[in-house]
Amino acid sequence: MGKVILYVAQSLDGYIARENGAVDWLSFIEGEDYGFHKFFDEVSVVFLGNTTYNQVLTFEGEFPYKSKDVFVFTRDNSKYKDENVQFIASKVGEYTKKIKNKAKGPCWLVGGGQITSYFLENHLLDEIRLFTIPILLGSGIPLFNKINNESKVKLIKNTEFKTGVIESVYQIIE
Amino acid sequence: MGKVILYVAQSLDGYIARENGAVDWLSFIEGEDYGFHKFFDEVSVVFLGNTTYNQVLTFEGEFPYKSKDVFVFTRDNSKYKDENVQFIASKVGEYTKKIKNKAKGPCWLVGGGQITSYFLENHLLDEIRLFTIPILLGSGIPLFNKINNESKVKLIKNTEFKTGVIESVYQIIE
Repeated sequence: MGKVILYVAQSLDGYIARENGAVDWLSFIEGEDYGFHKFFDEVSVVFLGNTTYNQVLTFEGEFPYKSKDVFVFTRDNSKYKDENVQFIASKVGEYTKKIKNKAKGPCWLVGGGQITSYFLENHLLDEIRLFTIPILLGSGIPLFNKINNESKVKLIKNTEFKTGVIESVYQIIE
Repeated sequence: MGKVILYVAQSLDGYIARENGAVDWLSFIEGEDYGFHKFFDEVSVVFLGNTTYNQVLTFEGEFPYKSKDVFVFTRDNSKYKDENVQFIASKVGEYTKKIKNKAKGPCWLVGGGQITSYFLENHLLDEIRLFTIPILLGSGIPLFNKINNESKVKLIKNTEFKTGVIESVYQIIE
């Protein structure tokens, strides 16, 4: 069984991208791995929201999650064909639990906001690995959308990098 | 000359209070001072937005900033009379700079969101001392509202408390 981990970078003011989706502001923290390769090697499942999936498709080069079992949540799974991906359009909670139970390693919830809200509201998320980047973007796409339920979390790790990035890892308790 | 410091607690999802203004969720991190008394002793000036000021007035006991020079930013300064406070209704930037230049110690920007945005947009803020509380509120009053300009910040301190609170201090560079 693999735990579901939201592994994500945010600006100090809580945005994961500019309003237009751009993440150019992440470039200045390059030159450090932030434990990403170790994490990615362990991951066996990747969860993507529909918007995030479509954005990943615009990236140059081959599909970055090719070596993983990739699931994309979308309202309409009839319009896509992608050999690298399985689309989930209904019973999201049920499917996610099954996938998680079968997974041999961690399940990476890549984002974005809508699917993260859904996972939080339906208690499908186990851990948040948050990288806070030392920049105030002013505006952008928020990491957390407003949802109806509260969650208790436990800080399990807090690391500071030379680049000024803070990695904070939280376990979701309830 | 005193630097202007936003000293504030936020939930992991970036809220400073519940939708109704309640901060009851801060109670579970009690039993630790978080350097507050040292900070408060040094502070010579307190800046409050109008909403925050009105909320402080509902607190039991005497006005908590009585020993400081307190300035409240409000659109209409004719409706208030308070011997503990000076009201600023216009030329906010100009007055703030004067107050800051005269101040013998740090100026505490208590909040809330509107005045924080104004200070950020007008380059009046020097430092952010942010206490991230291990809770996901789901909804509430955000610490950062959307504004038009970006700010570079530098991480100068990152401390973890036993309660799971992370204190991160950022200097605003530009």
